[in-house]
Amino acid sequence: MPQTATTEEAGLALAGWTRSIKRSALQDMLVASARPGILSFALGLPAAELFPAADYSEAVARVLSTDPRALQYGPPFRPLKQHVVSLMRERGVECREEQVFLTAGAQQGVNLLARLLLEPGSKVVVEEVAYTGCQQVLRASQADILTVPTDAETGVDVGAVERLLESGVRPAMLYVVPDGHNPLAVSLSREKRVRLAELARAYRMPIIEDDPYGFLYYETPPPPLRAFEDQWVLYVGTFSKIMAPALRTGWVVVPESLIPHLAIIKEASDIDMAPLSQRAISAYLDAGHLPAHLDNLRREYRRRRDAMLGALRTYFPAGARWETPTSGLFIWVELPEGADTGALLAEAIETEQVAFIPGHAFHVGDEPPATNRMRLNFSNSSVERIEEGVRRLARVLSGGLAPEAGARRG
Amino acid sequence: MPQTATTEEAGLALAGWTRSIKRSALQDMLVASARPGILSFALGLPAAELFPAADYSEAVARVLSTDPRALQYGPPFRPLKQHVVSLMRERGVECREEQVFLTAGAQQGVNLLARLLLEPGSKVVVEEVAYTGCQQVLRASQADILTVPTDAETGVDVGAVERLLESGVRPAMLYVVPDGHNPLAVSLSREKRVRLAELARAYRMPIIEDDPYGFLYYETPPPPLRAFEDQWVLYVGTFSKIMAPALRTGWVVVPESLIPHLAIIKEASDIDMAPLSQRAISAYLDAGHLPAHLDNLRREYRRRRDAMLGALRTYFPAGARWETPTSGLFIWVELPEGADTGALLAEAIETEQVAFIPGHAFHVGDEPPATNRMRLNFSNSSVERIEEGVRRLARVLSGGLAPEAGARRG
Repeated sequence: MPQTATTEEAGLALAGWTRSIKRSALQDMLVASARPGILSFALGLPAAELFPAADYSEAVARVLSTDPRALQYGPPFRPLKQHVVSLMRERGVECREEQVFLTAGAQQGVNLLARLLLEPGSKVVVEEVAYTGCQQVLRASQADILTVPTDAETGVDVGAVERLLESGVRPAMLYVVPDGHNPLAVSLSREKRVRLAELARAYRMPIIEDDPYGFLYYETPPPPLRAFEDQWVLYVGTFSKIMAPALRTGWVVVPESLIPHLAIIKEASDIDMAPLSQRAISAYLDAGHLPAHLDNLRREYRRRRDAMLGALRTYFPAGARWETPTSGLFIWVELPEGADTGALLAEAIETEQVAFIPGHAFHVGDEPPATNRMRLNFSNSSVERIEEGVRRLARVLSGGLAPEAGARRG
Repeated sequence: MPQTATTEEAGLALAGWTRSIKRSALQDMLVASARPGILSFALGLPAAELFPAADYSEAVARVLSTDPRALQYGPPFRPLKQHVVSLMRERGVECREEQVFLTAGAQQGVNLLARLLLEPGSKVVVEEVAYTGCQQVLRASQADILTVPTDAETGVDVGAVERLLESGVRPAMLYVVPDGHNPLAVSLSREKRVRLAELARAYRMPIIEDDPYGFLYYETPPPPLRAFEDQWVLYVGTFSKIMAPALRTGWVVVPESLIPHLAIIKEASDIDMAPLSQRAISAYLDAGHLPAHLDNLRREYRRRRDAMLGALRTYFPAGARWETPTSGLFIWVELPEGADTGALLAEAIETEQVAFIPGHAFHVGDEPPATNRMRLNFSNSSVERIEEGVRRLARVLSGGLAPEAGARRG
């Protein structure tokens, strides 16, 4: 007899997983931080004012006026796969069109790979602090989640992964965000990437490399894990952060033998017929818009990052610590021991109309989470609002924190 | 230890379901029938030349030039839900915006509901002949599939459903396409709808009402099942056939208590952030384009239906039988006993460059399928090509069939 949950009103019997996962705190935050007047560092939103709206609109018009198949069912759009191959090459990854599978964004990429690799009870290795979207996928898959330590200075503890594997554990997969980690903001060193790739190969452990921020770097990064291992690293990319989220288009790069399996599970999920966005993005890329657009994004996001780092140095209390992110959209702040960012958030929204995400929202595993961490997003606010928001936040902190000596690492 | 399959090249261990489902024959057919020169009645494609490409292009341009949030992450777009409420009202269904959940098309609607209701081993009732997309979802869910008889004249055998329920079976859901059934082309009588709704209520059995063709009727149909039962009937609709498939946008109408659960599983699947298409479709509907567009679709598809019926009467052998569809995109043809539409298809593609789907591709269950059925699509060919294609098909049949007396029901 299947285990079922029941909704009170409807009396419908629901699948058991519905009891084990909840809507992510980030979704609730989307609602709260959309309240008028809230200055939000909460979500990982790209800057709407930088979206290539006019160029994309032109691309849609061009496609709709010239390609009668653009609105029809059809197979995944090959010219877009060719563009993905070129994009991957820019990041130092050699791959072939036959290894590229188009998705409805990175979340679907991770979800499809999890459905391909996981059975209920499969062991999965994740960091103690990890992207909530991945956690939801794993809970829906009813995976057995094993955690390894991680930190904001160097990222996933590769030695702990190795000890786990040496002890005989054979995970069905490991999940990692090597560039601009969400939420820790750290990017892995080349040495860690090489070592992870070696472990994947040696222990035949698939690694899901989730790379939404890899093109948004402020110092040239080492290549993705996929550059060091083409069989066991399954790369997940997306146009959400480099063009726009509402296009709902991403890709995975995997061994060619997996593509037919991905096609089946995507067909069952949402039919795997090319949406208009595949053709329109391809037309936008054909027109050669992306390199200048990416330069612009990197320049502007770096300005915002620097503004936030500066404001943190100026206004945040002694004892607060953070690193300088070299990729991505976030700064991860550790307040002095004893601070409670959950309570601070409620107060920050109430008294100063400013929002962030408390670190414990990203916590994985049974250990009690640290309460003194927060994730700040810098991509979705102007320099002026960043300075204003950090000042407001600091006011809340100075109320909620005993001033205390401590190292700053900014 | 989870049961796993292995891909030969990669050596990756895959989830067990990967062994039990295959890419649908319809996907392969998409490739075969896309060969230049093939006159295809195979797929259920709407007519590309009738897509509202110019009006939709305008809607996209309007949205992108006026709404800065159109390309951003954001909650499901409420104005589109309000349009859905109005559309449902036209079909005789009263529902509220709070009962509407937006999806990436009908396939995703069915998939999300299945993930919500099914555990491995859950019992699901489907007709012996059923849409392949539903079968894939059920196989991926590892459901226990129970079949009931059905036919092209009256559709699902509601008495058989009742006997199953009376015998004590408690299905986790029943799946049905009440209007313009795919592939049988039949629409259910009002009496059958009322009775199914009563059974759902009496036995607390959720019914997934998949309704992609409900707006494409040639005689005014009875209202959907959802009009007769608002708690146990879960309605699935889509813009794919009434606007265009590549927009990848649909909806479900369910009890409000299910919406948060659907939001969670959609968030894990593909993040449940409003794509651009939700805003652009809403803008297209705001502009009032849909009623005239639907009138035009119904008029033109009726012309094509009638052309195919006429050509079948003229060219098809005695003993072939079909009904006149009152909704949808298909005609289901039964050839005389002994005909083998699988063999005929290969010959038809080879010698006459014409394609269809053999009926056994839709067969569910362990009984050997009838081999003498075929599904013909009339929406995606001009009247001239329909006449030419049916003539070609008849030539293949006259080679492969002994002429035989028999009733025609056209």
